[in-house]
Amino acid sequence: MIKRFSIGIDIGGTNTAIGIVDEDGNVSFKGGIDTPGHGDIARYVKDLAAEVTEMAKNLKLSNPDCEILGIGIGAPNGNYYSGTIEFAPNLSFRGVIHIVDLLKKEFPEYKYIALTNDANAAAIGEMIYGGAKGMRNFVMYTLGTGVGSGIVVNGDLVYGHDGFAGECGHTTLIPGGRLCGCGALGHLEAYCSASGMKRTAFELLAKYNGVNSILANYSFKDLTSKVIYDAAIQGDEIALEVFEITGKYLGMGMATTVHHLSPEAIFLFGGPTAAGDLIFKPAKASLEENLLPIFKNKIKLLPSRLSHGDAAIVGASALVWKEKSK
Amino acid sequence: MIKRFSIGIDIGGTNTAIGIVDEDGNVSFKGGIDTPGHGDIARYVKDLAAEVTEMAKNLKLSNPDCEILGIGIGAPNGNYYSGTIEFAPNLSFRGVIHIVDLLKKEFPEYKYIALTNDANAAAIGEMIYGGAKGMRNFVMYTLGTGVGSGIVVNGDLVYGHDGFAGECGHTTLIPGGRLCGCGALGHLEAYCSASGMKRTAFELLAKYNGVNSILANYSFKDLTSKVIYDAAIQGDEIALEVFEITGKYLGMGMATTVHHLSPEAIFLFGGPTAAGDLIFKPAKASLEENLLPIFKNKIKLLPSRLSHGDAAIVGASALVWKEKSK
Repeated sequence: MIKRFSIGIDIGGTNTAIGIVDEDGNVSFKGGIDTPGHGDIARYVKDLAAEVTEMAKNLKLSNPDCEILGIGIGAPNGNYYSGTIEFAPNLSFRGVIHIVDLLKKEFPEYKYIALTNDANAAAIGEMIYGGAKGMRNFVMYTLGTGVGSGIVVNGDLVYGHDGFAGECGHTTLIPGGRLCGCGALGHLEAYCSASGMKRTAFELLAKYNGVNSILANYSFKDLTSKVIYDAAIQGDEIALEVFEITGKYLGMGMATTVHHLSPEAIFLFGGPTAAGDLIFKPAKASLEENLLPIFKNKIKLLPSRLSHGDAAIVGASALVWKEKSK
Repeated sequence: MIKRFSIGIDIGGTNTAIGIVDEDGNVSFKGGIDTPGHGDIARYVKDLAAEVTEMAKNLKLSNPDCEILGIGIGAPNGNYYSGTIEFAPNLSFRGVIHIVDLLKKEFPEYKYIALTNDANAAAIGEMIYGGAKGMRNFVMYTLGTGVGSGIVVNGDLVYGHDGFAGECGHTTLIPGGRLCGCGALGHLEAYCSASGMKRTAFELLAKYNGVNSILANYSFKDLTSKVIYDAAIQGDEIALEVFEITGKYLGMGMATTVHHLSPEAIFLFGGPTAAGDLIFKPAKASLEENLLPIFKNKIKLLPSRLSHGDAAIVGASALVWKEKSK
């Protein structure tokens, strides 16, 4: 029997990860190249195509009967409609990059080559391989350096009019509040991202004059959400309160998302969600507190089932199956 | 040539309005009955059916070649999926009312009988007859006693998992702020509805000790958004500031909606929007100020093109054409 695969490419600021993924979301081959700083897109696509071709060759050697259906790409500011990466601040390629067209030239044998941003890719991955299988309406929040999101309505990703829908991380929670990465004030991302948690920790250290906290030993540069988590499971009160507050803010924002979209579930993905109940309990309590009565006790709040290490390439690869199903 | 019509029914707290509407959104016959306080749904449906039958008979007399395709119903807490009105606080019918099933029994000859809430009906009306013709992604905000909304993604109304999507009026703008009709604090509806404008006026009268304002002559019970508008066009400074503040809050909330959905346009409907630039200018400025750079100067902010008096029945009637197109 022919076994079918798709290729997932995750373009990050410093590294481009590549995986060949089967229909169940298992990664058969993993590879990657540096995302270069030289800004020369033609050279980058050549290097990327060489690595993909090599990996595909290795797959054929181990699975002579296999078929590769296409390539899915996750990238910052990736636009599904145009197949372009547009003005991504963390990449060296300037302006509008027609990455899908460039890869179609390299791989005319692949029927499906598609692009979206990383949070949308994660949502599609959850729908194709993960906990959202069979769900027609759900939302994915990805908590990392920033807070991304992907929205699924009637079984399809919501791209909106110009391809950029799903920026739930830029919901204003506190008018005039913390400076967000986007330059505005008080957005959810400034409170609920990994760096938002660090900022909350520093506020609490200042508030309580917390010299006895484990967190008091870290500089602003060195503190991470992982350190906060380790301190919390040791019972550090400031670290525990960081999770309480992060969950509270997250629930406020998610309530607004529910009021817009009435999803069956919200999935949380990313480093901070590894803390389990420490983040899920206060987030769920705050979500329920902020929901309209017609939504109370209806919305599932679930951890993503994509494995954290491979989620980006697995999510990107899911785009291919999604395209195929259209 | 056969001329085709649909029937729109708008069930309000005190009055049920009925219209027979052509494919261009023109109302040919208008009627209505009281929405009774007796709570007897069987009796109400009988009375409603009698009125609709009478109106349909009159239509046939004037247009012997006409065809009526179905009935669209707009009602508070109307659920599209189940065809039920669920626990509507302003209606005398208790619990879950299977209004679509009840009307299907009365009118087996109509192929399409569908229900949704009034704001969703307005959005569909805008898409079928109004300014959103041809748009695939847009949002409608209805400003009235409350603030409702209808969301269209990829040409379809977003109902969400359980039929209750589109409650953008319950976006939290000010944590711990004004009491909203739903019991929560700081929601957009508490600032941008007609009664929200009245509350802003009273805050400003208090703030400026505004004895010289025209608005100083009105009790809290008597002040309306129409009075505020009339005062504003006479140059009353407090009335003018009410519009500025209402627009500012509206823009904040609409930005969150745009960040979720990336619509082509947002339409505003309802009494306060008759003020034109007085509300649109500050709303547009605030929207732009609160948008992420990728959305700036892209989102159209437009007045609804549905005529205010008939919009509820016209919007409800549009449900029939939408069902037919599926």
